[in-house]
Amino acid sequence: MPISETWLLPDGVADVLPEQAQVIESLRRQSLDFLAQRGYQLVYTPFIEYIESLSSLSEANQDLDLVSFKVIDQMSGRLLGIRADMTPQVARIDAHVHPIEGVARYCYSGTVLHTKPQNSSPSRTPLQLGAELYGHQSIAADVEMIDVMLGLLHNTFKLQHTHLDLGHVGLFKSLVKYAQLDQDNERLLHDLYQRKALPELEAVTKTLPCGQDFYMLGRYSGDLIALETHLSADVLADVAFSDALQVLKTTVFEIQQRWPKLSIGLDVVELRSYHYHTGLMYAIYVPNRAEPLAQGGRYDGIGQHFGRARPATGFSCDLYALCARQFEKIDTVVAPAGLEKDLIGAIAQARQDGHAVVQLLGSDDLSSVPFATHVLALQQGQWVMKKIESV
Amino acid sequence: MPISETWLLPDGVADVLPEQAQVIESLRRQSLDFLAQRGYQLVYTPFIEYIESLSSLSEANQDLDLVSFKVIDQMSGRLLGIRADMTPQVARIDAHVHPIEGVARYCYSGTVLHTKPQNSSPSRTPLQLGAELYGHQSIAADVEMIDVMLGLLHNTFKLQHTHLDLGHVGLFKSLVKYAQLDQDNERLLHDLYQRKALPELEAVTKTLPCGQDFYMLGRYSGDLIALETHLSADVLADVAFSDALQVLKTTVFEIQQRWPKLSIGLDVVELRSYHYHTGLMYAIYVPNRAEPLAQGGRYDGIGQHFGRARPATGFSCDLYALCARQFEKIDTVVAPAGLEKDLIGAIAQARQDGHAVVQLLGSDDLSSVPFATHVLALQQGQWVMKKIESV
Repeated sequence: MPISETWLLPDGVADVLPEQAQVIESLRRQSLDFLAQRGYQLVYTPFIEYIESLSSLSEANQDLDLVSFKVIDQMSGRLLGIRADMTPQVARIDAHVHPIEGVARYCYSGTVLHTKPQNSSPSRTPLQLGAELYGHQSIAADVEMIDVMLGLLHNTFKLQHTHLDLGHVGLFKSLVKYAQLDQDNERLLHDLYQRKALPELEAVTKTLPCGQDFYMLGRYSGDLIALETHLSADVLADVAFSDALQVLKTTVFEIQQRWPKLSIGLDVVELRSYHYHTGLMYAIYVPNRAEPLAQGGRYDGIGQHFGRARPATGFSCDLYALCARQFEKIDTVVAPAGLEKDLIGAIAQARQDGHAVVQLLGSDDLSSVPFATHVLALQQGQWVMKKIESV
Repeated sequence: MPISETWLLPDGVADVLPEQAQVIESLRRQSLDFLAQRGYQLVYTPFIEYIESLSSLSEANQDLDLVSFKVIDQMSGRLLGIRADMTPQVARIDAHVHPIEGVARYCYSGTVLHTKPQNSSPSRTPLQLGAELYGHQSIAADVEMIDVMLGLLHNTFKLQHTHLDLGHVGLFKSLVKYAQLDQDNERLLHDLYQRKALPELEAVTKTLPCGQDFYMLGRYSGDLIALETHLSADVLADVAFSDALQVLKTTVFEIQQRWPKLSIGLDVVELRSYHYHTGLMYAIYVPNRAEPLAQGGRYDGIGQHFGRARPATGFSCDLYALCARQFEKIDTVVAPAGLEKDLIGAIAQARQDGHAVVQLLGSDDLSSVPFATHVLALQQGQWVMKKIESV
């Protein structure tokens, strides 16, 4: 009893057919090899875990909990989550399973599942690829991570015209603390910054402590020099605020040294994953695409949940979103059926030379391999590869 | 508030740490490349699907339904299954998404999830790798599949002393039909065959139609010549029965031609996945391991559920179970911090030469990279790689 609709896949879920799968497989390998060359060690993390482990971030980031599928473990009766992000898993490995004393660098690639599409992407099954650096508090660690992210996108994915966006949650966070703002107003401002609602921001900040500074933060969010000119001297003297400002400046300088032609933008009130991040945030954009192709930032203390809080910075991307290029197809050679030594030898040789070789079954002919590009044919006693002429 | 137990993983679920992940990643690539060379096209199948799609086999194979985790799709309200086997997904692709007219060869690799450990393996998250051939009814297709399976295990995994076990559900199935056995007795015999309970089988078959033939099938299950001697002429003359017998004989002959040194065993009452398979079954064993390392068989008509029933044969294996060998570690080189052109050039060169290079952050020293094997050091104005002497 065939069910006519069963072949339909759920929204945001798709098969990846051979041509596309080849592209993705190839770029996945190149990406992991690139990260290995930068000293990032590969880990495979499990698909299911106890929900408490996966939601280590969810106290700070409720989104991750909402986006995770949950099932009951028939063996323990406990609630399991299907991974929606691999970062908490790598944090668990760094904190507990593989506790290196010094700096730990990990990379990973795997499917994650989302209950609902995230951001503007329709997919619920991104192929996440990422790298994380644990155990180093310095700007150098963030700079390395941004450099790796740019290297990956430029070298492996041959992306051009990329734009790096830098932010730092520390400016807004320290100003909130300095101004002793309550949570309601903090949320309100957060929302106004996200919506880039300047007129509204101007009206709201009039009645707030340090209101003028909060307004200037939004108004000059992309221009540090103008921002410094317009902020009050007291705020600029605040240690946490000036530290965050300095991190941004140093990072811009260091990245410009390494990537002199790169377009770099700043947004000090870009506050995505505001509760999750603890410092610098970075994202790479390309023209005609609203969502970043890769993004990350600092999230110190992520391992605390697992008993070992360490500085951490890292980025991730969705390989499916990145794979726009076409993969060079490999030749498919069709060989006749048979067990003669010469034929078997010629087939083995062609395979060794990197061709895909299909040997016909029984009385089949060429039409059974519609994507064939060559045939193996006997010519003056020799098996030779001949290109199939297009009709 | 760290939860002391959160880092514990559920039973049958494990992290794969760098050294092991390197091995598996490398063998996964080699396996897929081997299958591509044999003409098998890579597909990625989704992690979740509507349960009706995943359980296309479950009318015949209830195990697959029991072993699949299920979740509610928040977007459609429908029941989703997490893949526990990728074969039904590839069947769906062959039947509907990518309907090639001739022979279709697909390969795949990915994690599947099981609600409970299967067979004697403790794992609930096998890394399934497999190949399927659709659209060919011939023995040649089964022989190709066995040949590919053997090639993969011998060439990619360097396995030796493998043993090939062949079976064919057609002998028992056709004898049941010929003897017009009822379902209860069919189940009883199936159970006795599986338990190799010969004395019990002898007693039970005394009262059954064709009882002597059912007994001989169990007694001489591994010896076709003895079996033919002891079966009744009527049974041997049954078309379906003699067809199945002939398939086994031809397969043994053809495989011996290709793998003259291979140990081949027969078991005509090996009936695992009895309701699922429709013809020849094959499995590869190695010494000191009760479970097969790779197994498969014919399952014609699997695509019927999706509106296109085609002959099908294929095998799969669990890469985690296969990855016993150690991967040759790549060197990790530690370079000092700095932006000098010579240093940056030397680092880029070492990476291009296939080494992993970690550049120290700030004032860190060598101890921050415990797995380092080499340092990049300045010697007479040249950056050179020096092996770290073990203490």
